[in-house]
Amino acid sequence: MSAIDANNSLRVALDTCQEGHSLPRAFYNDPAIFQSDMEGIFYREWLFAAPECELPNPGDFVTLTVHDAPIIILRDQDGIIRAFYNSCRHRGSRLCKSPRGHTARLVCPYHQWTYELTGKLISTRFMGEDFEADKFPLRPVHVTSVEGLVYICLAQTPPDLEKFRADITPYIQPHDPRRTKIVHESTIVEDANWKLVIENNRECYHCAGAHPELLVSLVEMALPNDARFADELAIMDQKARDWDALGLPHAPVDGGLEYRCIRLPFREGAFSMTLDGKPACKKLLGDLVEQDLGSVRAFRIPNNWHHFLSEMTLHFRVLPLGPDKTEVRTTWCVHEEALEGWDYDVEHLSRVWVETNAQDKTLAEENQKGSRSPGYVPGPYSEMSEFMVINFTKWYRNTLESWLSEAAE
Amino acid sequence: MSAIDANNSLRVALDTCQEGHSLPRAFYNDPAIFQSDMEGIFYREWLFAAPECELPNPGDFVTLTVHDAPIIILRDQDGIIRAFYNSCRHRGSRLCKSPRGHTARLVCPYHQWTYELTGKLISTRFMGEDFEADKFPLRPVHVTSVEGLVYICLAQTPPDLEKFRADITPYIQPHDPRRTKIVHESTIVEDANWKLVIENNRECYHCAGAHPELLVSLVEMALPNDARFADELAIMDQKARDWDALGLPHAPVDGGLEYRCIRLPFREGAFSMTLDGKPACKKLLGDLVEQDLGSVRAFRIPNNWHHFLSEMTLHFRVLPLGPDKTEVRTTWCVHEEALEGWDYDVEHLSRVWVETNAQDKTLAEENQKGSRSPGYVPGPYSEMSEFMVINFTKWYRNTLESWLSEAAE
Amino acid sequence: MSAIDANNSLRVALDTCQEGHSLPRAFYNDPAIFQSDMEGIFYREWLFAAPECELPNPGDFVTLTVHDAPIIILRDQDGIIRAFYNSCRHRGSRLCKSPRGHTARLVCPYHQWTYELTGKLISTRFMGEDFEADKFPLRPVHVTSVEGLVYICLAQTPPDLEKFRADITPYIQPHDPRRTKIVHESTIVEDANWKLVIENNRECYHCAGAHPELLVSLVEMALPNDARFADELAIMDQKARDWDALGLPHAPVDGGLEYRCIRLPFREGAFSMTLDGKPACKKLLGDLVEQDLGSVRAFRIPNNWHHFLSEMTLHFRVLPLGPDKTEVRTTWCVHEEALEGWDYDVEHLSRVWVETNAQDKTLAEENQKGSRSPGYVPGPYSEMSEFMVINFTKWYRNTLESWLSEAAE
Repeated sequence: MSAIDANNSLRVALDTCQEGHSLPRAFYNDPAIFQSDMEGIFYREWLFAAPECELPNPGDFVTLTVHDAPIIILRDQDGIIRAFYNSCRHRGSRLCKSPRGHTARLVCPYHQWTYELTGKLISTRFMGEDFEADKFPLRPVHVTSVEGLVYICLAQTPPDLEKFRADITPYIQPHDPRRTKIVHESTIVEDANWKLVIENNRECYHCAGAHPELLVSLVEMALPNDARFADELAIMDQKARDWDALGLPHAPVDGGLEYRCIRLPFREGAFSMTLDGKPACKKLLGDLVEQDLGSVRAFRIPNNWHHFLSEMTLHFRVLPLGPDKTEVRTTWCVHEEALEGWDYDVEHLSRVWVETNAQDKTLAEENQKGSRSPGYVPGPYSEMSEFMVINFTKWYRNTLESWLSEAAE
Repeated sequence: MSAIDANNSLRVALDTCQEGHSLPRAFYNDPAIFQSDMEGIFYREWLFAAPECELPNPGDFVTLTVHDAPIIILRDQDGIIRAFYNSCRHRGSRLCKSPRGHTARLVCPYHQWTYELTGKLISTRFMGEDFEADKFPLRPVHVTSVEGLVYICLAQTPPDLEKFRADITPYIQPHDPRRTKIVHESTIVEDANWKLVIENNRECYHCAGAHPELLVSLVEMALPNDARFADELAIMDQKARDWDALGLPHAPVDGGLEYRCIRLPFREGAFSMTLDGKPACKKLLGDLVEQDLGSVRAFRIPNNWHHFLSEMTLHFRVLPLGPDKTEVRTTWCVHEEALEGWDYDVEHLSRVWVETNAQDKTLAEENQKGSRSPGYVPGPYSEMSEFMVINFTKWYRNTLESWLSEAAE
Repeated sequence: MSAIDANNSLRVALDTCQEGHSLPRAFYNDPAIFQSDMEGIFYREWLFAAPECELPNPGDFVTLTVHDAPIIILRDQDGIIRAFYNSCRHRGSRLCKSPRGHTARLVCPYHQWTYELTGKLISTRFMGEDFEADKFPLRPVHVTSVEGLVYICLAQTPPDLEKFRADITPYIQPHDPRRTKIVHESTIVEDANWKLVIENNRECYHCAGAHPELLVSLVEMALPNDARFADELAIMDQKARDWDALGLPHAPVDGGLEYRCIRLPFREGAFSMTLDGKPACKKLLGDLVEQDLGSVRAFRIPNNWHHFLSEMTLHFRVLPLGPDKTEVRTTWCVHEEALEGWDYDVEHLSRVWVETNAQDKTLAEENQKGSRSPGYVPGPYSEMSEFMVINFTKWYRNTLESWLSEAAE
């Protein structure tokens, strides 16, 4: 398919979008629009890649694949976090296939071209005397840690991330994500378009019917002044006073359509996202002394959301694999010095979100099956309960509109 | 691919068709032509969906998927059969995923939007005071029962079905399909284009070499005056007199290229499509008293054929899954009051067509493998033995020609 | 996708090729370019199909599939090797599905149309008196045996093969491949573009890091005067004298970009491609009396390479299955009169290349994963170690350039 055809598909689809309604069918199914999503969004925006605690020491690396692009992220000998395209500069072979590991050098398994952790090519065989190794460093990818959350960007010139950093840092810094360790992780594949996975996450309108385990702790409320939740509002008022006293921010930040950050309380009597509402870990994060902190909820377009509790952090990363296939990785972290068996139990700590993820997978897959139908017509969102979905689809359409305009120039 | 490109593929392919020959390669392989098949045929024609006896009571439902379109068919509280796109009017989620069931309401598993069995939206949460629920009924699909055979049509304005109904009703009414029950079903997936599955069914030229079990009862003869089958003609004459005396029609109806209906005898001594030729069920259908009725064979474009015997009905439904993937569902029905173990044995009753379906699957798959070859050239049909295949491909080409002309207007 | 779009993709991709560098990303991933590869190369060039010893007797046949085209190769009653499209002239069904067998006639499993081994249609049922069977022979495919190597060509007018035949015959004739038998075979599927599989084979730059078993016998040297391999050069000089004395040619032939043929010695002390370097078979091939003959290495575009040792021949056949999926078949042959258990042991004989193939599969798959990345940029080949890869990609680009020019006429 020519680029012109592909852009025409997108143009036509964008023109049929209706304010306040779910997206037209093509956005969830058309391979050409999926390709636009990759080029206009996933190869241009900042993407959450991993919690920084996955790379504690020089030489540690993790790998991931952004659709077609294998990426390696590592901590170099000077402690600097770097990211590269995981393709050798010789014939393009992937350099690392392990999801994570530790190494002093990057050696291509094909012909042993060898790179320093800075990306510098330092050794090749038989390339001749005229070969200028310094012209073939690994191709870098932008990378930054936002208070322990590692983001990468495949664009040549990445969009600004500083307002996001400034806004969310005060919320998550007290939880000190850099001093955590991953104690559980899960990677699932959902047979659904990545936008349905994100839309599912952007509302709790479905929680009552789908997530009994999650609702032990979570309140459907997404804003601290939602009049529908009278009981919870009373709790919110009380908590707001407690958190103010502790110097912990909680009011919603103004992230426009791009991000959200807020601290919200759990249901009365629940301290954590566990089946019994009890803390997932005895040892609190950072220097926290108060257990009852609800959770800081952070979301950022296009691919991640997080919960920061008093004793646990949760990180969710969404990566598209195809028009109707999406990978969701979840990592559960506790204080790096917490002891398994004493401070926490992995089953107790992970159960709620393992179940919730499985439930969301089914919901997203059924949504995919129904919205690929020629009988599907976009329906109206609930302004009360799905305002964050509305925001997401607005952001999505704006972003592709801009991308199309740039491409047309 | 743009719609113009897709239609060009079809145009070119149609122009290379040769009268009396199998279709050119592209018709069995090209994804663009497959898409045309869906839009020009499967989303426009009446499709056999299920035997009505699968929905005996108010609240019973069955689901199926017409390529991309999940459909639900149900009997409402007033006993009326209705069909809907199986997609919620909110965000498009599939409403029902069970192949069949019983329910008083349709409740979307995503956000619990709730519909009456008439399709009326009767309950939503948090949609605000201005929300006009009556604007969001389930989208209806045309549905009708032709004497117990449930047909659906996804077109806005369905083609006429009344001549078909009038023609076949006298043939099948005596077998009273509404008073049957399904006692066995099978759903198989063939790695072949749907047209190869239909073509395979439209001739018995292949029977001698492929279907030993079927030939216990079936005669290769497709017309009651086929001079090649002298012995069977004598049987036919005798049977015609018997059936006339019983008031049971048997002569071929004039269904043009669209359908066929005829009663033909079995081989001498065979009463049913069983391995031993003995009746599949002791209890006869409807009010029939004579066991030796051969079978009424009904076929209708684009996706179904049936056998109505004195004591059993067989229904075959073909649904395309992709250019080279097709689902075939077979249901075996007997009188609703027949008793398993006493009147019938499932293995005895189903064996012949379970074997025959498996043999046809292999034939269609080998046909697919050979006709996707650049070395394949369409070959000549046998006018004597493949006239119904000729009719089918004529109908197919005419239908896509019309669809292209309409699209061009 | 229209043909014009597809050719545009190829045109754009060809224009971005850089001399001495690996191919741009699209060549390894784009379905349109894969289709061009089939039409411009695999449906036009001579392809290695099988060792002739697989068809020792009249009536023997083998089948293979060239992407979409099932092919049958057989030895007819007069001993002539023939090849046909494996599609019945009736409705296109594949005639044979066995990988190999023996038959007196070819009978289509669908409707029993029957062909002589010359391809002549000799029997059909019910085709009527006017049917002219002689107009429906099996469609022939060009086939020839080059000294025991069976090549086929799907083009109407095949390219010339006589220079190749004349050049390589003196090298392989002493090994008498016609008097061998297959004693082991393997067929593996690599998740990589066929060109990456070939490129991998065209250099031993990767051997040091990947193939410990192969390096027991093989020298990385590809030319008899490669100054990097001083020790081996001494062996080469000695061997050249020995082989000259035996009348066995060894110097590289001039096959341009299309083929290569050379005899090279193994490492000192190694007689064969076995784990211990000992001969794979006690009985020598043909009338050979000298065990230490290194191996004749023959490669021919686009899909095959071979080793002819004193006591074993190895044949490698590459067939593309899709843009990122390729079948590699390897056959191991020894003298037709050699006795298993006495003369050879299958595990001892096959182990090195079973391991080497598995290693190459991983290398090609990692190359595929890295080169599909938007971060991949073609890199420089080593002129010393990858000159045969350079030749291959030159040949590839030239061939598609010519094909495009012809198509444009």
